[in-house]
Amino acid sequence: MKRKTKNVLSQIGLRTSDSPISWLMKTKIERPNLVSLAAGFTDNESLPLSISRRLLNELLEDEVIGRAALQYGTTAGDDALRELTAKRIEYLDKSSSDKDMANIAKRMVITHGSQQFLYILTEALCDPGDIVLVEDPTYFVYLGIMQSRGLNGRGIAMNHDGIDLNHLERVLESLRRSGELKRTKMLYLVSYFQNPTGRSTSLLIKKGALDLLKKYEKAAGHPIYLLEDAAYRELGFAGQSDSSVLSICDASERVIYSGTYSKPFATGVRVGFGVLPEDLLAPFLRIKSNHDFGTSHLIQKLVFRALDSGEYFKNLEKAQRRYQFKANVMYDAICNYFPEVVKWQKPDGGLNFWTELPRSMNTGLKSKFFQEALNQNVLYVPGNLCYVDDSTRRTPSNEMRLSFGAASEKEIRKGIQSLGNVIKRK
Amino acid sequence: MKRKTKNVLSQIGLRTSDSPISWLMKTKIERPNLVSLAAGFTDNESLPLSISRRLLNELLEDEVIGRAALQYGTTAGDDALRELTAKRIEYLDKSSSDKDMANIAKRMVITHGSQQFLYILTEALCDPGDIVLVEDPTYFVYLGIMQSRGLNGRGIAMNHDGIDLNHLERVLESLRRSGELKRTKMLYLVSYFQNPTGRSTSLLIKKGALDLLKKYEKAAGHPIYLLEDAAYRELGFAGQSDSSVLSICDASERVIYSGTYSKPFATGVRVGFGVLPEDLLAPFLRIKSNHDFGTSHLIQKLVFRALDSGEYFKNLEKAQRRYQFKANVMYDAICNYFPEVVKWQKPDGGLNFWTELPRSMNTGLKSKFFQEALNQNVLYVPGNLCYVDDSTRRTPSNEMRLSFGAASEKEIRKGIQSLGNVIKRK
Repeated sequence: MKRKTKNVLSQIGLRTSDSPISWLMKTKIERPNLVSLAAGFTDNESLPLSISRRLLNELLEDEVIGRAALQYGTTAGDDALRELTAKRIEYLDKSSSDKDMANIAKRMVITHGSQQFLYILTEALCDPGDIVLVEDPTYFVYLGIMQSRGLNGRGIAMNHDGIDLNHLERVLESLRRSGELKRTKMLYLVSYFQNPTGRSTSLLIKKGALDLLKKYEKAAGHPIYLLEDAAYRELGFAGQSDSSVLSICDASERVIYSGTYSKPFATGVRVGFGVLPEDLLAPFLRIKSNHDFGTSHLIQKLVFRALDSGEYFKNLEKAQRRYQFKANVMYDAICNYFPEVVKWQKPDGGLNFWTELPRSMNTGLKSKFFQEALNQNVLYVPGNLCYVDDSTRRTPSNEMRLSFGAASEKEIRKGIQSLGNVIKRK
Repeated sequence: MKRKTKNVLSQIGLRTSDSPISWLMKTKIERPNLVSLAAGFTDNESLPLSISRRLLNELLEDEVIGRAALQYGTTAGDDALRELTAKRIEYLDKSSSDKDMANIAKRMVITHGSQQFLYILTEALCDPGDIVLVEDPTYFVYLGIMQSRGLNGRGIAMNHDGIDLNHLERVLESLRRSGELKRTKMLYLVSYFQNPTGRSTSLLIKKGALDLLKKYEKAAGHPIYLLEDAAYRELGFAGQSDSSVLSICDASERVIYSGTYSKPFATGVRVGFGVLPEDLLAPFLRIKSNHDFGTSHLIQKLVFRALDSGEYFKNLEKAQRRYQFKANVMYDAICNYFPEVVKWQKPDGGLNFWTELPRSMNTGLKSKFFQEALNQNVLYVPGNLCYVDDSTRRTPSNEMRLSFGAASEKEIRKGIQSLGNVIKRK
């Protein structure tokens, strides 16, 4: 960067680093023969092509609805979509209190993908130097937002059923002692079939985490929010999942929920949503209004009609079966081609396998291992990219995220076989 | 706001104030009989209903293109759309250098409306306390971004052909003397049929402004960018308009251009774009990637097809004629109903008339005048909302922005008649 440009950029402009995923994507474009088990793209064959065509046709055939879809909407988003989304959460949460659900629709904002929800929420809550607690490992794109905005992070260890509550308590206690609790704004959990590990956090653990956050909020002088990112919630293979934080009694002032229609319906449509405590709604909407006055009305109306007609659910079932099939293909391939030293667990949903190699094997972007995988024409996400910068613990460097979302059956087999060869040679 | 919430919000969360337009919109919803000459909505009848239906149909009928439209795109936006957009700018600028235009497509980012372009650009360049120079008056939604991000503004006086270059030089000189030039990042011009005044800035004046900014950049230690917001460029009644800042020789490192398809095509589609100096492209894309990884691919593909098929231009001509007609309706109504003390000028494009009342008449949101207009069931945008907070000059409070974009012919006549009555009674 030229010196003059350095002088003119803001702190955010200077700080925001290039996402490693850009580099991974660029590598894939430059080498089209590469098998990418790195991309977070969804399955191309599951995209709702004919459904979207029919729904958009119907939508734009109707003079009144069609005109509304092509005109500005409101900053908070389409009322009808917010109501159906609240109903969908109610169904998934097995909750039946109409009052609560009406309230959820009111506290909901539709965003341009759930990524925008995470961005604006973080903008509304966090100044540079503030602290967000995240899972070890976590969704690495959120780490990009934190880095860009100058936030500090603390990693909370994970067990197979979600975060380690004992570790969460130790971290909160150490922040209290160091006087940093005032700057601690939230705990970010990717709770369903987590990206990257595929693990889910049980409702019990979410409740336990919320209790701990409450216990420390007096010392903090403000709520420490529990932000549940449910992006992969609908991509479970068995159909059922534990209830969300929204189902917890008397918690509406302390929990935040974000979800998306991008993954379960179409990533090209980019409709996400979030539910906020009442106190945070107005500040969030003011900032959203400065971003874009509200999400494209046309894509919101398309998602509304997909839900309303039931087509969304038919397509979702198809997608779930397809992902389950591809997860099984990866499972079989890993069983066949990975040596026993590799530790891993079959996920019940989501798009990824998380694999742990012996400690001596460094999988980072600049490692020999990564280079050898590239030589074998296979790309993965190095596990260390999924850990927040936290000097209080060592960052593991011997893990890989392997995605079966975008790759074909054949690519999955070939990619895993190649990676297996690289591991065996070490 | 509860004390606890105050403690937890960020500086941005605390600072961002409610847009007065939200209040105006709420008032309109609560009183549906109100004639709103305040809304920035576009004309409902000009929305491309059947065109969009047909194009989406074709788009989603094609397996390859359809799947691409429903899948993630890139952060910078669809290549084909960027190329056609560059060609469109080339045509409007009467420029024919292919090399320049290829370069423009490369330096272009597609955003979720041009508002998102303005937001991210401001994020990339400006820290709290930095200075942006704006027109007196200017697009008030941009003032919301400035307020939210803690920026300072200086208003540059306007003549009928754009900003007053002498005043711009005096302001730059005073900033140099006070040592504030280092914090001065850009001059923001809404150059075509400006919102709110309807005035256009000639290429000559734009060149003059750029020369002045260049003259002061050494003292600033960095470029002071000229940001041209061309949102209304295609809404001219005569079809022709002066060339943009992109046509100026050897200026690509210092000019930024933002445009949109929302106003000329469909506000519900929310596709905007911007062209950046090469040095700013990477920082912008990194931040955009944190916002949303890229704008919904489906709406980008729709706009691309509209341009590619020529339907965009047919619809645009229809919209231009419709706005010209509505501008004439407002013109006739003002001639009939406003007393001679009111000063105004008929615009050649855009969506607004700007009217100046005698100095004694305060038109602000809390004024008696505004209340009496409300009693007469008519809503307008008070002119003082369009001035940046700048203590070096008095803010005029005797102006009104009257929009003919969304109101029907009948509403325009009725609204202007009612406002005329309020003025005459003063």
